[in-house]
Amino acid sequence: MNPRRAAWAYLSQAALGPCAPLVELVAAVGPEDAARAVRQADLPEVLRSRTAARRDLDTAERDLAAVERLGGRLLTPDDDDWPAWKLLAFDAMDQRRDRECAPPLALWVLGSRSLTELTERAVAVVGTRAATGYGEHVTTQFVDDLAGEGWTVVSGAAYGVDGAAHRAALAAGAPTVAVLACGVDRAYPAGHARLLREIAREGAVLSEYPPGTAPARHRFLARNRLVAGLSDAVLVVEAGARSGARNTAVWAAGLGRPVLAVPGPVTSASSVGCHRMIRDGEAVLASRAADVSVAAGPIRAGESEGGPARPLDGLSHKAAVVYEAFPASGSVGVRQLSEDSGLPVEAVRGALPVLELEGLVGSDETGWFRRG
Amino acid sequence: MNPRRAAWAYLSQAALGPCAPLVELVAAVGPEDAARAVRQADLPEVLRSRTAARRDLDTAERDLAAVERLGGRLLTPDDDDWPAWKLLAFDAMDQRRDRECAPPLALWVLGSRSLTELTERAVAVVGTRAATGYGEHVTTQFVDDLAGEGWTVVSGAAYGVDGAAHRAALAAGAPTVAVLACGVDRAYPAGHARLLREIAREGAVLSEYPPGTAPARHRFLARNRLVAGLSDAVLVVEAGARSGARNTAVWAAGLGRPVLAVPGPVTSASSVGCHRMIRDGEAVLASRAADVSVAAGPIRAGESEGGPARPLDGLSHKAAVVYEAFPASGSVGVRQLSEDSGLPVEAVRGALPVLELEGLVGSDETGWFRRG
Repeated sequence: MNPRRAAWAYLSQAALGPCAPLVELVAAVGPEDAARAVRQADLPEVLRSRTAARRDLDTAERDLAAVERLGGRLLTPDDDDWPAWKLLAFDAMDQRRDRECAPPLALWVLGSRSLTELTERAVAVVGTRAATGYGEHVTTQFVDDLAGEGWTVVSGAAYGVDGAAHRAALAAGAPTVAVLACGVDRAYPAGHARLLREIAREGAVLSEYPPGTAPARHRFLARNRLVAGLSDAVLVVEAGARSGARNTAVWAAGLGRPVLAVPGPVTSASSVGCHRMIRDGEAVLASRAADVSVAAGPIRAGESEGGPARPLDGLSHKAAVVYEAFPASGSVGVRQLSEDSGLPVEAVRGALPVLELEGLVGSDETGWFRRG
Repeated sequence: MNPRRAAWAYLSQAALGPCAPLVELVAAVGPEDAARAVRQADLPEVLRSRTAARRDLDTAERDLAAVERLGGRLLTPDDDDWPAWKLLAFDAMDQRRDRECAPPLALWVLGSRSLTELTERAVAVVGTRAATGYGEHVTTQFVDDLAGEGWTVVSGAAYGVDGAAHRAALAAGAPTVAVLACGVDRAYPAGHARLLREIAREGAVLSEYPPGTAPARHRFLARNRLVAGLSDAVLVVEAGARSGARNTAVWAAGLGRPVLAVPGPVTSASSVGCHRMIRDGEAVLASRAADVSVAAGPIRAGESEGGPARPLDGLSHKAAVVYEAFPASGSVGVRQLSEDSGLPVEAVRGALPVLELEGLVGSDETGWFRRG
């Protein structure tokens, strides 16, 4: 077993969910040293207490075997396919670390397609489990149109709107991504076991929780941030007064992603949440798929908001992330770039020569700097 | 025949619709001198050409007889019941006189109740003639709740949403006001002849056009400004892509009245206009009657926006209008107050002693001034 891979798996199990300080530690010292520090409780107090309960679990081998048996893999920041570029915006939430708005440490993924490619143009379509016939109809209509425009549909595989969104994407022959609040070995909800297999075959089923993890309320909330973070916009089709879809919308807004909501009859309890979000300015009213793609369109992967897209075209996503981490002027060191990009020092070291070759950055005795 | 009354009727027929310069002329010189000037074409060019086609018509006697035969009356700024206070906000649109956003010269009214009292708390409920079952149901629901809170419902007596709004108000035993785009002697639409008789009995049917005037497209647009101007808020229940209800909403926005729209299924053509208004920020989403009354509530008759309500309580509306016309400091003359209030000099002269008695204004050798 690759010891670095095992370290990632160990850390995923020890953290069991979002853990910003651990992501930072790994970025600074790499997964193996981080795993060793966790095991030995050689950590700052906040991390020691956060990992105390699970640091003696070592299920890495079992977990890696479990995901491989399902034809899946553990995806980490080491991999070219790591969708760090989509999670970049999490940096904007540094001040809110207490809300655990961190990128995931790693992702357990079923499906052979590149997650980066799958989510290059992605829209989250979410909503209440108690979808009405109207809600299912509208979900199908929107997804069918979005699929036709080349958008991947990201959702949570729940009953109701989520399930209708995945099914409509599959029916349209478009890829779709399901983000789970439990291990990818668990079919949750049970009635969607077959749907989840189809999603894995055509797109991806993923989770930040290791195999065997049971769904729990706080995991749904943490999962919602990944649904938002992997998407260029979030569409809420139907939401009751207390729908979790609204939580996804809050993450999306925090990440600077457009949030849209579909109105419905004011007589329908399943539209109450959508109407409230529209009325309160938390969501833009969407009456057709074009409203969504127009909102989602301008901000593309690898771009900072409003920034020019051109120089980053053709770069690997990791290189683009490193480039984005450069200050507009002045020199920086590798360590600083690692911190600002959220990528391990090694990854930064690997990306710099590529950026230099492209003429995008240069170096001198003071460090690395952006060109032009 | 009272010559002053005959002059108003003559001017209403000569103008045949909104005519800001004529309203100004009448405010300055009174209706009889204004009528004489129109008859003799002794006018500024803009007014001469505007009245040239109709200045030789003298149907005043016939028109007054016609409205009296129907149990109605001609309501003018001479009357205590003239709803000038609601039209005050038209002053805000002075710059847009070219759009004919003027108060009406006079109103032809069927119904014995005081228009001022009827519209003291009034909400316009308007929408497409092509209302769906959903639209009629929602109209009835909103109006029933608004009627229960003591709101008068103002609308345009058209088929569809307008008719449902009037009917629901009548069914709830609440007053309702229909503003027509033709003479009040015309039942338009014909299928609403009986409904219009009921509205006149319980509330009011009114028009700025004299008896005999036929409906015409531009008159519907001019009528919509009165629907908005008589109301504290405008609710659009259903509107297609090109519904006239949106025109009413534009007037309302220009007059500083809140505009609300009810969402519906995105699959319904009759909600397209509402959704567009909400999406574009022209209307606030309303999902229940309380949304409307909350929006309409804060701005009350006789108050300037945000101004304190107390000192004006108990004043006649005309006195309140004159009081509002006072500058915050400094003295003014009667002529200036007439210009700023839009009321005839005589009306201002009548109101000043009342205001002085209430301790709200005082006078000295420099003119009249506001107290405290």
